[in-house]
Amino acid sequence: MTEAPGFVAQLYAAAARNNSLVCVGLDPEPGKIPAHILALPQPIFEFNRRIVEATAEYACCYKPQFAHYAALGAEDQLLATIRFIREKHPGLPVILDSKRGDIGSTAAKYAQESFERYGADAVTVNPYLGSDSIEPYLQWPGRGVIILCRTSNPGARDFQDLESGGKRLYRHVAERVAQKWNASGNCMLVVGATYPEELAEIRAVVGDLPFLVPGVGAQGGDVAAAVRAGRTADGFGMVLNSSRGIIYAGGGAGFADAARAATRALRDEINQYR
Amino acid sequence: MTEAPGFVAQLYAAAARNNSLVCVGLDPEPGKIPAHILALPQPIFEFNRRIVEATAEYACCYKPQFAHYAALGAEDQLLATIRFIREKHPGLPVILDSKRGDIGSTAAKYAQESFERYGADAVTVNPYLGSDSIEPYLQWPGRGVIILCRTSNPGARDFQDLESGGKRLYRHVAERVAQKWNASGNCMLVVGATYPEELAEIRAVVGDLPFLVPGVGAQGGDVAAAVRAGRTADGFGMVLNSSRGIIYAGGGAGFADAARAATRALRDEINQYR
Repeated sequence: MTEAPGFVAQLYAAAARNNSLVCVGLDPEPGKIPAHILALPQPIFEFNRRIVEATAEYACCYKPQFAHYAALGAEDQLLATIRFIREKHPGLPVILDSKRGDIGSTAAKYAQESFERYGADAVTVNPYLGSDSIEPYLQWPGRGVIILCRTSNPGARDFQDLESGGKRLYRHVAERVAQKWNASGNCMLVVGATYPEELAEIRAVVGDLPFLVPGVGAQGGDVAAAVRAGRTADGFGMVLNSSRGIIYAGGGAGFADAARAATRALRDEINQYR
Repeated sequence: MTEAPGFVAQLYAAAARNNSLVCVGLDPEPGKIPAHILALPQPIFEFNRRIVEATAEYACCYKPQFAHYAALGAEDQLLATIRFIREKHPGLPVILDSKRGDIGSTAAKYAQESFERYGADAVTVNPYLGSDSIEPYLQWPGRGVIILCRTSNPGARDFQDLESGGKRLYRHVAERVAQKWNASGNCMLVVGATYPEELAEIRAVVGDLPFLVPGVGAQGGDVAAAVRAGRTADGFGMVLNSSRGIIYAGGGAGFADAARAATRALRDEINQYR
């Protein structure tokens, strides 16, 4: 029996096919959804569906951010969104961005939530609780496990930069992932575009381990600096997420067209520097 | 206008009233719920309701663990459980154990989820992303914010023990909470019962900041050692959580009675050492 390709292979196949390293973040906020969509029975799903249809040609993956659904009790629309992508665009992986982190027995429940209930191809996780908090996700064959390393926010400095044995905490995390947790080859690291020096430092010690890079667009990260710092020699090695910069690129009746144009523009900007 | 008492005041009032430092963890697993409850339309809620009714006299708070609901798509039963406790036992605070951790704009959504959607009195959060990831929770007046510090699992050693500037990571977290984040007095720290030396070390540097202590019962933590290490001079300063040791203390028709006896026994054991 031939196994299905794993998450990272799927992701790179999509990136090659669409010549794109753009991850489209699906962070729906009712206050920003156009009125004609808000009037529909499942407005969040309907918004997402139109964004996906408009951007699928220029993206390599999608990343729904869990809090935006959880705050509203919209788990059903999150599920509908992921199902829609898997059915209509099976080549484009879905990353559930829920940043889970708990002890082993509980992590097993979160893995079940991510991969079975929602059917996500990958999930983001927090490394603070260590190995047994990550292990249950790694036991799902072919699914992606994307570990927070150096995040894109200002508070990232508070603890992630603490130096121990000549290395900052984020580097300890990066090395642990590269040397231990990535045995099956389906791990990635979250490294913010807002910190290109750290991107380069981490790239230097983790080989070709791919990065999920948030922080371009609304958070102000520089695309050129991030791509130059984080890419691998073959021009892959990272996907760059934009959420607000794409899904709210335009309002009203033209929101999906604006999202499409923004995705294409970000794709082309990234490709200049690969 | 007099403000309602904050989370920590509520918690200590409950602890004093019931002479108890027991937090009952509500981690329902269908495979362990008695058959006569599983046959009901909302089996998880019905199980929890009976556990709460049986244990309310001997507990000081309840802690539903989010993954156990999320894995099953049982958010409605989580909500029903929290509502039930708030209506029938308004003096017993509810801690939503979801260990959230995300950048500021997203953390605001998680705070909305925790405090508005679910109506929890407190939520557990992960410190890895630093100050801006905690700030949105602190802005909810009177609600509790319970920060992971030294967790109870084996993997806690991997990163939480890294030493920087003569202090381990968990101590940097503890000091940050005590000195900055706890300005409104409604923070707590998660410190595992499985590591009593660390409990004592942290107690020595954070004054009377209260601890949520998991790890007794199924995880093997020693009650006497944990209480002696973590209590404050007045015999408070901590609540000890037991989940599996209480809610699955017995099966079949007598499960609630067994949970009641286990809660009382844990309460009495803790009180020996306060």
